[in-house]
Amino acid sequence: MTDRPATPLLDRVHTPADLKGLSDAELVRVANELRAETISAVSETGGHLGAGLGVVELTVALHAIFDAPRDKIIWDVSHQSYPHKILTGRRDRIRTIRQKDGLSGFTKRSESPFDPFGAAHSSTSISAALGFAVARDLGGASDTGHGDAIAIIGDGSMSAGMAYEAMNNAGHLKKRMIVILNDNEMSIAPPTGALSSYLSGLYTQQPFHTLKDAAKGAVSFLPEPFREGAKRAKDMLKGMAMGGTMFEALGFSYIGPIDGHDMDQLLPVLRAIKDRAHGPILLHVLTKKGKGYAPAEARSDKGHATAKFDVLTGTQKKAPSNAPSYTKVFGETLTDLAAVDSRICAVTAAMPDGTGLNLMAERYPSRVFDVGIAEQHGVTFAAALAAGGMRPFCAMYSTFLQRGYDQVVHDVAIQRLPVRFAIDRAGLVGADGATHAGSFDIAYMANLPGMVVMAAADEAELKHMVATAAAYDDGPIAFRYPRGEGEGVDMPDQPEILEIGKGRIVQAGKQVAILSFGTRLGEVRKASEALRAKGITPTIADARFAKPLDRDMILQLAADHDVLITIEEGAVGGFGSHVAQLLSDEGAFDTGLKFRSMVLPDTFIDQSSPADMYATAGLNAADIEAKVLDTLGIATLDKRA
Amino acid sequence: MTDRPATPLLDRVHTPADLKGLSDAELVRVANELRAETISAVSETGGHLGAGLGVVELTVALHAIFDAPRDKIIWDVSHQSYPHKILTGRRDRIRTIRQKDGLSGFTKRSESPFDPFGAAHSSTSISAALGFAVARDLGGASDTGHGDAIAIIGDGSMSAGMAYEAMNNAGHLKKRMIVILNDNEMSIAPPTGALSSYLSGLYTQQPFHTLKDAAKGAVSFLPEPFREGAKRAKDMLKGMAMGGTMFEALGFSYIGPIDGHDMDQLLPVLRAIKDRAHGPILLHVLTKKGKGYAPAEARSDKGHATAKFDVLTGTQKKAPSNAPSYTKVFGETLTDLAAVDSRICAVTAAMPDGTGLNLMAERYPSRVFDVGIAEQHGVTFAAALAAGGMRPFCAMYSTFLQRGYDQVVHDVAIQRLPVRFAIDRAGLVGADGATHAGSFDIAYMANLPGMVVMAAADEAELKHMVATAAAYDDGPIAFRYPRGEGEGVDMPDQPEILEIGKGRIVQAGKQVAILSFGTRLGEVRKASEALRAKGITPTIADARFAKPLDRDMILQLAADHDVLITIEEGAVGGFGSHVAQLLSDEGAFDTGLKFRSMVLPDTFIDQSSPADMYATAGLNAADIEAKVLDTLGIATLDKRA
Repeated sequence: MTDRPATPLLDRVHTPADLKGLSDAELVRVANELRAETISAVSETGGHLGAGLGVVELTVALHAIFDAPRDKIIWDVSHQSYPHKILTGRRDRIRTIRQKDGLSGFTKRSESPFDPFGAAHSSTSISAALGFAVARDLGGASDTGHGDAIAIIGDGSMSAGMAYEAMNNAGHLKKRMIVILNDNEMSIAPPTGALSSYLSGLYTQQPFHTLKDAAKGAVSFLPEPFREGAKRAKDMLKGMAMGGTMFEALGFSYIGPIDGHDMDQLLPVLRAIKDRAHGPILLHVLTKKGKGYAPAEARSDKGHATAKFDVLTGTQKKAPSNAPSYTKVFGETLTDLAAVDSRICAVTAAMPDGTGLNLMAERYPSRVFDVGIAEQHGVTFAAALAAGGMRPFCAMYSTFLQRGYDQVVHDVAIQRLPVRFAIDRAGLVGADGATHAGSFDIAYMANLPGMVVMAAADEAELKHMVATAAAYDDGPIAFRYPRGEGEGVDMPDQPEILEIGKGRIVQAGKQVAILSFGTRLGEVRKASEALRAKGITPTIADARFAKPLDRDMILQLAADHDVLITIEEGAVGGFGSHVAQLLSDEGAFDTGLKFRSMVLPDTFIDQSSPADMYATAGLNAADIEAKVLDTLGIATLDKRA
Repeated sequence: MTDRPATPLLDRVHTPADLKGLSDAELVRVANELRAETISAVSETGGHLGAGLGVVELTVALHAIFDAPRDKIIWDVSHQSYPHKILTGRRDRIRTIRQKDGLSGFTKRSESPFDPFGAAHSSTSISAALGFAVARDLGGASDTGHGDAIAIIGDGSMSAGMAYEAMNNAGHLKKRMIVILNDNEMSIAPPTGALSSYLSGLYTQQPFHTLKDAAKGAVSFLPEPFREGAKRAKDMLKGMAMGGTMFEALGFSYIGPIDGHDMDQLLPVLRAIKDRAHGPILLHVLTKKGKGYAPAEARSDKGHATAKFDVLTGTQKKAPSNAPSYTKVFGETLTDLAAVDSRICAVTAAMPDGTGLNLMAERYPSRVFDVGIAEQHGVTFAAALAAGGMRPFCAMYSTFLQRGYDQVVHDVAIQRLPVRFAIDRAGLVGADGATHAGSFDIAYMANLPGMVVMAAADEAELKHMVATAAAYDDGPIAFRYPRGEGEGVDMPDQPEILEIGKGRIVQAGKQVAILSFGTRLGEVRKASEALRAKGITPTIADARFAKPLDRDMILQLAADHDVLITIEEGAVGGFGSHVAQLLSDEGAFDTGLKFRSMVLPDTFIDQSSPADMYATAGLNAADIEAKVLDTLGIATLDKRA
């Protein structure tokens, strides 16, 4: 706290209106101070750093020139919105970001009128800007009025089909709207100084239709080669930078590229756009992720998401880990299996590190496919790999697999192809909050005919399930597991291949049976210890499979106990619902079984630690204990309604 | 039957191998006979006609030159695959198409080795072809071997983001694969004769890199203007036709455009591609939907899907309708509401006619948005319209809304925006079969916090629900309704605004309560009549809402009856599961309630009439009656296991 940077000019900026009277030189100073403040804040809180640092100048320029919240500034993904939050009345809370009851790490409508459209998943911003532009022109009433609609979208997000769909529609509707392509793959070399004065002079003096030609000429000032290995979309954008042909084909006026860290370019170009734009405009801005903070610039992911860190050294302050992450267990197990089965290959949608597939890619690069932010294509691509004789693992976060749901149904499940879905970040995820929660996959996967759905109770179980999926050729199979560290259990040298549709009894007891699906098993065990002290020893079972259910085990549990409680890290419609369907079909309710299904509550839960979020959800040990006692009719102090 | 065309040459073609020895002139004759056979067959069966007629020559040329099933010929959507089916050993069954136990109206892996990848939803073919190409190069084992991977995709399907994602990935991977863009918006004028010899001469004699230039020159032979009102993607493709810049940006070699009805162009170009292609190639082919059959060419939708018809006149033989379709009721009601509420607008994903929004578009064209085959964008666009003060109805088929699921979660539900989802084709849909079934929406919508989910029991109820949705501003709301005609009930002049979360008692009875969600209510009434004859008068309730549930009504039903049966046109995880969750939470099972939940079975059901499909599903009156008797312990002759 004592080392906070001096920010005399920024201290006078409480809302964007306070920027209006400042000179261009003062805006440059505001940007510098905003960068220092962002670094300082994230060093205390952790979070996304590099993305915000890349758009500091752009953020200041947008707020200096446009009139938010009347003008709608829409940040794609919005992990780069920390500087925006600081400038829009939230500086006093910026050091609470991503914490319980603090600011969201993303834009959020309920947090501020300066956040007209929340985000977190990528590539929604152009659709959103178009919606605002159309609503404006149709006379839609908005509390904050209507002005320009501005989407700021990164080059990576442009690989998603949704961005293409939106541009395609925008080009057709021809509404005035602005898309700022924040292209942060291309680093900017010294000659931008010359480019700067050349370009910005042109922008302020000439009508738009000649600006394009100017931009084409200006490209010759830029360094030629681009990084190898970047995704195709990025290559394409670079190609397009040579005149913006693709964007023009889609009906946009293309302007750029300009240096997004040079206020002498940004300010005049944005002023010209504000004054003279008609129809959809794409402004191509070159920025550097992590700009202005050497440790972030130096990291391979440009400080994408970081723990708390020391500002001077960039050293991150991570708690030591006790157990391997589920992600790592998946990645290592799959790599081992790929060594012995050459049919195994893997698909990720722009998340090789996040899904652990980087581990397999190191050893078998030709069998790991990063398709870009393209879950729709990724799932169908995997389906065809399977049809072509391969055995693909499609590794996606639960929340992102939602993007490929139709393809799971139409291309995988209906064709009964052996695609293996590795569903990471299942359940509540912590600091990323509601937008990243993996709440719905049990329901939306387990109701598909022929789909096998597993959940791992711990990291050893996950290892078994990866192997089980690898051995299963009869159709699609999915296994889900949470974010973060495992339970610290002993890891087997070799995984077991589980019998499909068979659960396991973890503890024999009586009167009460608790049937767990997934990693709540640890909380169930804790609840069981507390209940033992009260003279109740529940039977504990690990279902392993939501589909097919272990009918024999579940019906036996129902027959042998007065109370049967299911628990899962998912919304209603999932595991507990399938169990209820079985029990009702088989008449197990007819004789008075006390059945309860513990699921995620019917609310979106804001960011906090996962444990806190599960407490909010009522799925921790104390909640399980209370549910058992309540169902048995034994009063508890903290009985829930 | 007596009027079948003479097809002497086609009669000798039993598999594609039989085409190999034919001369080019004979292949032209085969194509002509294949066209006649297709028209004749569809006149008897109904189905998709225009699309198939547009690709007759292409189908013959592909099968003459490539070696299916070793080469993978993948038809996008695949409603144009009837000629392909006729050539690939299914001619003897072509007049069973779209009928119970007959051929599917789409390609289907289980139907033929010549269908390497099934389809029905659009824009999956490039992903699929890429998957086969990669599997081939990785050495994947396929029963039919591996050769070329060829996707044939229409210009409309190119508006979907998924196609862009796939091309983006294909351009990066650089595998040999072939995408044939079947561009059927541009009609081909007489000069194609000159173009033909010009182009095909070039194609056969010159290396590819000069062919592009040739194609560019050839464009000057084509008529200039294109139809107004086409979607932006189509305009773009036309723009791109002038050299294929966009496809080249995505890493494809572009060839075209050529006349897809001229075998003298198709054959040499495809031969050249087969002999010399490396990397991804896009061949741009111009065709005419309905080609060669005047009544189909003349229809505005080019005979997209047709009933049985008279070959000579083109007159369709439709059964007279007794009641308005649900789609029409939706469209008319929405149009009436739009007249009094200027905030109402509507979004369709390339289905203005199918969703009934054409009716609103006739009166309020500026408030109806056809976004293309772009459900992802469409949903988020609607969310932003709502954020901007409008009140959008997002009208999509249940099965296609799956494509926008993440956007429903992330952009609508989490932000609690008042988007109204009109979910058409809910439940089983008949001739389109499993790929078009609306089986999953109750589960995947009702588990979203804050989502209101209704289902209409009949067309009058639908009218009320449209008005109820229009009046509901507190967040998102969805209502589902089936394909086809209503029940024939009296239609109210004015719709009622229903109370959110309140069902209705349809018939007071005792002992047994049947709680229906949606249009199974008619079957429930029939079952009730049959049960009355046996001395049982069930209570019948129409839930109207799966979310929020009518807790009071449902708990009262549970309290007052020995048996409670729910029924819905959806898979497990939906309405019945929510009811079970309520009953278990409230302890209603504890005292021995005989609860049963009738849902779609855990299988994909092939095409037939909807009534037949529901019989297969066990959701017709006889099944309901049997379920009641069985649950009461009364033996029935047709008792189900």
